[in-house]
Parts: sequence; structure tokens; C-alpha cells
Amino acid sequence: MYVSVSRLRVHADRCDELIAAFQERARLVDSHAGFVDLQVWRSDRDPGEVLMVSRWSDRDAFTTYMKSHDHRLSHDRIRPSLKRAIALERLEHLHTYEVVAE
Amino acid sequence: MYVSVSRLRVHADRCDELIAAFQERARLVDSHAGFVDLQVWRSDRDPGEVLMVSRWSDRDAFTTYMKSHDHRLSHDRIRPSLKRAIALERLEHLHTYEVVAE
Repeated sequence: MYVSVSRLRVHADRCDELIAAFQERARLVDSHAGFVDLQVWRSDRDPGEVLMVSRWSDRDAFTTYMKSHDHRLSHDRIRPSLKRAIALERLEHLHTYEVVAE
Repeated sequence: MYVSVSRLRVHADRCDELIAAFQERARLVDSHAGFVDLQVWRSDRDPGEVLMVSRWSDRDAFTTYMKSHDHRLSHDRIRPSLKRAIALERLEHLHTYEVVAE
């Protein structure tokens, strides 16, 4: 199994808006080959820290989705003002992992 | 759902040993109330970065386990030399999250 973690940071006053956007996500990814699941985690110590965690059967499934039209569509749905609020700290935000034990 | 992430860093030459220790874990946690699952993730860009990710029904289930005898037993099983290799970077290693969207 392969995991992608996007670490997002937003000001506390935009965090609820960010979470609402995830709760209303288009779910385009859900039908892609190799997609396992997606969760959004909010730190309970640092409310501005939000992780988007998606799990995949393997790395190829993830990279194929990242190049897909659906991935672009999903991003295009994000309100521009929210996108700007998130974008400020997107540097080095994507981390990927192999699941090595359960 | 509540998530605990322990970020561990070990030298590349100890990483296989660390993963083997997780693969041979005692599984004492698995029967605790509120435990959902546990995975160990290894970064594919930085092989010395390993995350231990456990999911729980809620924060109380997690904190109850952390105070339990089984949690102490699990840690006591780790070989001292491996524990020392991990301990160097354990500062601020524990992060906890609420699952806010799926």
C-alpha cells in the first residue's frame, strides 16, 4: 500500500472553510483504479495544521491519478480565495510513504 | 475518529531493524477498546523517516491505552540499542489529529 500526505496550513479563521471544502469534495478520486481511501486530519494541538491523507494500492495508481483530468478538476473546484490562503505554505507539502507493517 | 502519528528518525543502516521490530510487534494494542488499526509508513524519499500511525474511535481510547500496562510492555520489548538509535530524534515526535472529513 502507498500513502500520500499533503500537509496544509491555513490561518485559524479559514480552517473551517477548508474542512467544509473537503466535506463537500466531488469524490472524483473514489472511482480511480487503486484508490483505497482518503481522510482529512486536523491537528488537535495546532488547529491550522490539516493533513489530507490518501491511500493507494501502489505508487503507480497514485501517480496515474495525479496526472489525470479528474485531479485537475478537483483542484479547480477550490474557491480561489481559499486556494490563496492555503498556497502560502505549500512548499515541500507533499510526503509519500510505503506501508511497511500493519 | 482520532489519529496518533509518531514520527521516528533512524540512520539508514538501522531502518530495516526498526521495520522488522514493527513487523514482529506483540499486537497487544489490537484488543484494546476503541483501537481501529495501526500502520507503519516509510518515506520513499527519505528512508530514515518512519511514521507509526494508529487510529482510534476517539481521543479517550487513545489516552487510556497510552497509560496502560500493555503500552509499557510493548515499549519494553524494543531492543535497547534500537531504542537508543530512535530516541535521538524523539523530541516533538507525537502528533495527534481528529478525522474531520472522509
